[in-house]
Amino acid sequence: MLPAALIRLVRARAPLVHVLTNPVAAALSANALLAVGAVPAMVEDADEAAAFRPDAVLANLGSLTPGRATAIRVAVEAAMLAGRPWVLDPVAAGSIPARREFACGLLASCPCIVRANASEVLALAEGVGTGRGPESTAPAAAALAAMRAFARASGAVVAMTGAVDHVTDGAAMHLIPGGTALMARISGLGCTLSAVAAACAAVAPRLPAAIAACTLFARAGERAMAHAAGPASLAVALVDALADPDLLGPA
Amino acid sequence: MLPAALIRLVRARAPLVHVLTNPVAAALSANALLAVGAVPAMVEDADEAAAFRPDAVLANLGSLTPGRATAIRVAVEAAMLAGRPWVLDPVAAGSIPARREFACGLLASCPCIVRANASEVLALAEGVGTGRGPESTAPAAAALAAMRAFARASGAVVAMTGAVDHVTDGAAMHLIPGGTALMARISGLGCTLSAVAAACAAVAPRLPAAIAACTLFARAGERAMAHAAGPASLAVALVDALADPDLLGPA
Amino acid sequence: MLPAALIRLVRARAPLVHVLTNPVAAALSANALLAVGAVPAMVEDADEAAAFRPDAVLANLGSLTPGRATAIRVAVEAAMLAGRPWVLDPVAAGSIPARREFACGLLASCPCIVRANASEVLALAEGVGTGRGPESTAPAAAALAAMRAFARASGAVVAMTGAVDHVTDGAAMHLIPGGTALMARISGLGCTLSAVAAACAAVAPRLPAAIAACTLFARAGERAMAHAAGPASLAVALVDALADPDLLGPA
Repeated sequence: MLPAALIRLVRARAPLVHVLTNPVAAALSANALLAVGAVPAMVEDADEAAAFRPDAVLANLGSLTPGRATAIRVAVEAAMLAGRPWVLDPVAAGSIPARREFACGLLASCPCIVRANASEVLALAEGVGTGRGPESTAPAAAALAAMRAFARASGAVVAMTGAVDHVTDGAAMHLIPGGTALMARISGLGCTLSAVAAACAAVAPRLPAAIAACTLFARAGERAMAHAAGPASLAVALVDALADPDLLGPA
Repeated sequence: MLPAALIRLVRARAPLVHVLTNPVAAALSANALLAVGAVPAMVEDADEAAAFRPDAVLANLGSLTPGRATAIRVAVEAAMLAGRPWVLDPVAAGSIPARREFACGLLASCPCIVRANASEVLALAEGVGTGRGPESTAPAAAALAAMRAFARASGAVVAMTGAVDHVTDGAAMHLIPGGTALMARISGLGCTLSAVAAACAAVAPRLPAAIAACTLFARAGERAMAHAAGPASLAVALVDALADPDLLGPA
Repeated sequence: MLPAALIRLVRARAPLVHVLTNPVAAALSANALLAVGAVPAMVEDADEAAAFRPDAVLANLGSLTPGRATAIRVAVEAAMLAGRPWVLDPVAAGSIPARREFACGLLASCPCIVRANASEVLALAEGVGTGRGPESTAPAAAALAAMRAFARASGAVVAMTGAVDHVTDGAAMHLIPGGTALMARISGLGCTLSAVAAACAAVAPRLPAAIAACTLFARAGERAMAHAAGPASLAVALVDALADPDLLGPA
């Protein structure tokens, strides 16, 4: 399914996305989901999470707390058992050993998509710590082979975002160029793409879902750049662009 | 008291509002309170909350955690004992049974205003779960009778926001039309209205306070729409509009 | 070192700043750090914090929770032992006794900069509660002597922000005028300045670091005011201005 058709399906079905994420990305993620026609729900309590029935789940490990870690475990286990898609965003797995371990433990619950930067991909794929913080310190090229092997081993589609986004299911490698360099200065934007990828996975298979989310953000960033005077106005214009049903072309 | 005069009183008195809310709505709520001349304080620790003396309290149940749930119980109990107004925003009470139970338990501490969508009103009034997530799946018309009965039974003014806002103390039903449909795409905007309603309740009786908050947001949304290219720029322009002392007319 | 040169050094070195802060200020702080070329990391778990090696730490006490309090204790102790700079932002220490006590306890770990408003300075310096909430209720003039004595006693540079910012190491008192009054209506902006001060302290001595952060925000506020229609558009334009490498003059 092409990105434009897939995003229209998100808008038509309005999937309920259970977003477990960090405080920095929470508002931006919720607003991006509303912009594309999905419905965000930020249930953080493990007991509530156990009883919740969303259409997809995002497990973002940024600013992890013991409470959110428990809720994440419960939510992704429930998603797996119910056959609902969930997306793993292993924030800072490249630089915090405990974070990498937690992320690897979650792989047993079969995420449909892992959205990460190059350092995080290397950390999950090879147990190598290369990041210094949440940002990537590894070039994308260094992670491509690991990324493909990791996709095959985990069964997840891996979306590695950066100057060019790479998406693979372990076979072909899909490149999504575009966007703008200034997007790297918007805190939580990668986390937000992960949330939208979960919405996409609720309505379509994992590979086109990951490609659609990356394509959507690349196009939104390009259009927003025309209205931006810096990273904060870029973020505003980017969410505005996400809300345009015709961003990826008219229906 | 008319909305314009009431909002001017908020600006003159600068009430201190203890905001207990979810991470998505926290910054927007704090900025909206500052915009209307109130002072937000986001005390989350139960011990600190017990010693805190605000002019009003907001108990918003979004993304509830055990820690915030305890702080909310402490804060609303203290508010009731001290005769200070507090506002209940029962986020997702329509779709999460534990949330509905928690909300119903808080009613014993006598909120002055309950701000909710139609699904949440039905959940509190009739114990019926109709929501699928935080958004309402019930039409406003279906909740009007329940809303009036619930206001009478609880003693709270109920403000049900939607395409048209409805406010009742159990007797007359006040309709506040206006705003713009795009406001539904701003995550946490209802939560933010609840915070401003608490500021209003600190300076005036509950019925005109709830009406003033709804009126203020409707006018702010209309003015903001003229400057908005999508939901994110609408949110920026809406807070800018809230900061205009003459938004509801010149003094 | 002059502010312009110091901020260029931040951009060149990209210090990793461990930001422990409240949910209201989290996104704004992260975006401001990215805008000036620093790298924010919001590690909240005490075990993760103990293993983390940032270039500087911000301990902001807003919306303190038991979990974040523990992480703060661990992070600032680790920073002191490793000789890394950390900044204390004692939010609401002027109005919440437990907050003041916690802040005073942290002084034993030797913050390099304490960024506070006048009420918070008085609370830390003299154990006097003068604030009503997070905002200051004391005039800056009333706190100047206490501020200087507190800087000498604690060994920290104290940056007291307000209509005019004051910075002292206990000897000379540096005044940084400028900015715009509307900046007081942006929730979390002082917290954000504290985060940027930590980035500055990672690349330069504490006194010029504190002066540079205050100078940067004053200039950013002035430039942003030209593009602002209210506090929300001011915040957007202010972060945009922070991202301009030439904000304090061409290289």
